[in-house]
Amino acid sequence: MTEAAIGIDIGGTYTKFGLVDVEGNIIVEGSIPTESNKGVESYMAELSEAIHSKMDNYPNPIDIKGVGVGAPNGNYYKGTIEHAPNLGWEGIVPFVDLFKTHFNVPMVLTNDANAAAIGEKVFGGAKDMNDYIVVTLGTGLGSGFVTRGKLIYGHDGLAGELGHINVDPDGRECNCGKRGCLETYASASGIKRTVFKLLATNKVETPLRNYNYETLTAKKITEMALEGDPIALEAYDYTADILGLKLADAAAITSPEAIFIFGGLAKAGDILIENTKKYFERYLYPGFKGKIEIKLSELMDRNAAVLGSAALVWSEIVNHDVIKVPQQSKVN
Amino acid sequence: MTEAAIGIDIGGTYTKFGLVDVEGNIIVEGSIPTESNKGVESYMAELSEAIHSKMDNYPNPIDIKGVGVGAPNGNYYKGTIEHAPNLGWEGIVPFVDLFKTHFNVPMVLTNDANAAAIGEKVFGGAKDMNDYIVVTLGTGLGSGFVTRGKLIYGHDGLAGELGHINVDPDGRECNCGKRGCLETYASASGIKRTVFKLLATNKVETPLRNYNYETLTAKKITEMALEGDPIALEAYDYTADILGLKLADAAAITSPEAIFIFGGLAKAGDILIENTKKYFERYLYPGFKGKIEIKLSELMDRNAAVLGSAALVWSEIVNHDVIKVPQQSKVN
Repeated sequence: MTEAAIGIDIGGTYTKFGLVDVEGNIIVEGSIPTESNKGVESYMAELSEAIHSKMDNYPNPIDIKGVGVGAPNGNYYKGTIEHAPNLGWEGIVPFVDLFKTHFNVPMVLTNDANAAAIGEKVFGGAKDMNDYIVVTLGTGLGSGFVTRGKLIYGHDGLAGELGHINVDPDGRECNCGKRGCLETYASASGIKRTVFKLLATNKVETPLRNYNYETLTAKKITEMALEGDPIALEAYDYTADILGLKLADAAAITSPEAIFIFGGLAKAGDILIENTKKYFERYLYPGFKGKIEIKLSELMDRNAAVLGSAALVWSEIVNHDVIKVPQQSKVN
Repeated sequence: MTEAAIGIDIGGTYTKFGLVDVEGNIIVEGSIPTESNKGVESYMAELSEAIHSKMDNYPNPIDIKGVGVGAPNGNYYKGTIEHAPNLGWEGIVPFVDLFKTHFNVPMVLTNDANAAAIGEKVFGGAKDMNDYIVVTLGTGLGSGFVTRGKLIYGHDGLAGELGHINVDPDGRECNCGKRGCLETYASASGIKRTVFKLLATNKVETPLRNYNYETLTAKKITEMALEGDPIALEAYDYTADILGLKLADAAAITSPEAIFIFGGLAKAGDILIENTKKYFERYLYPGFKGKIEIKLSELMDRNAAVLGSAALVWSEIVNHDVIKVPQQSKVN
């Protein structure tokens, strides 16, 4: 009998899942299109079938200890997904309650970036840290803030919306309904918008002029930046400037030991990380300068959100002691 | 024998102290000028003498359970005051170690706004809250962030520097060495700078034109705003706009149940609070709109920082259970 946690990462395009053992090995994995316009119940039936089918093909019987789910706008306290702008389901989806009809095991659900943050602690680079931030640069920008070894959930279970802090209240339209949110600049879709802005304001030659808005991808921009394309590099610099500024603001509030960056844009490596560090240090409260690391997530080439969702099961359902929290009270 | 905690609030101009019982009654209080240019040791001798002298005049003998200290740039983990821009002491002052030669009792030291935040929980409006923010608008802007019922101290004990998040990196010079920090706009000194900017850009008649930079005070601006002076009102509107924006950003990160505003500027009442709420809601992540209160501190007319410093003694030294923290883990 193999013990495993099911980790599920619900993204705007795909839902990924994996069965993860207590050491962080993904023993089975797969994905289905999210296609949330199909309706929640048929989506869940398809997801459940995909997981069961993978389990059936696994050589040993599997003892499922629980299900961890990471989803945009996931509400940890209620097990719901609430008004997620990047998913097609309207209103409040009682995800955990509905999914129990497919897997009758303990479940825990949170924001996808919160799940990645727990993954960083249980399986990644934050093993010995109690105060850190994980930022995921995907289609949008997600974040998980950990302090005293625990996620900040806030009063309603929805904390960690760094992607929606304000860069320019009159700026770019955001899926959330506001304008100028950080994720309209610092994300895969944000950097594409920046390239289009730069193509409009500069006359420099670049193959990027041959792409229309539908065909240009962040992956292409990253490739071009790594080849030295001036517009792609300037787009990364612009992104790093805004991201560095807002990370400095976040750090002023929570004073983390490190900020881990995860996601497609981070594949640009130093072009993103070193540039972001430069601006971060420039905008940081002087008392904090030189004390906070900005680094790539150690789960970069792994399935961080699936690992993180599964880590939630191992840390919160199976064993509350997976995450060690020191007593930080300081009486002199 | 009366049991009391000594609460000390070190400000740029005055150091206030009080002996506070477990119910939050200040049984003895006083103050000395901080005059930090005199040197730490003579300052401490004077402070100790002032406290002892007040105690000697109290009719009953007092059993001192501990000393709580709130100070700008107070480091909770180390008991030190580090490079405080608004105090004259240079470098790192080992406050707790030095003050032990005067009072040999348990001591706890933190940022003054963190102390005010604990005061709000133990003696004020946050009694039933576990996730809230306290913002103090004094000469500068201080903040204490509470999540899961505990202060966010960060990896180094220095978290909560909301006053130094960036409004405009090319903006107003700040005491910290940067430019455009929030406290150069939203504070007693910030609103004075705003009035001078408005006097320069507008031609409207106002008695405020009769004050020079040295004689104009935030108190005067508040009085004029309450009397309807257009420049004073516009200065409050400008302040509320910036403060509302940055509180919306902070709320997006920690999702608090309420934000408590304390300090001189808050004496403008609705002119500050209602205006700040209006802008806060405008800039807030839509998922959070209408769910977060902005309100005056319930310690407004009391000595919040002294109460907060004393509250630290009652909560962290005498009785770890003064602050009740529920188990917030949510496994469905």
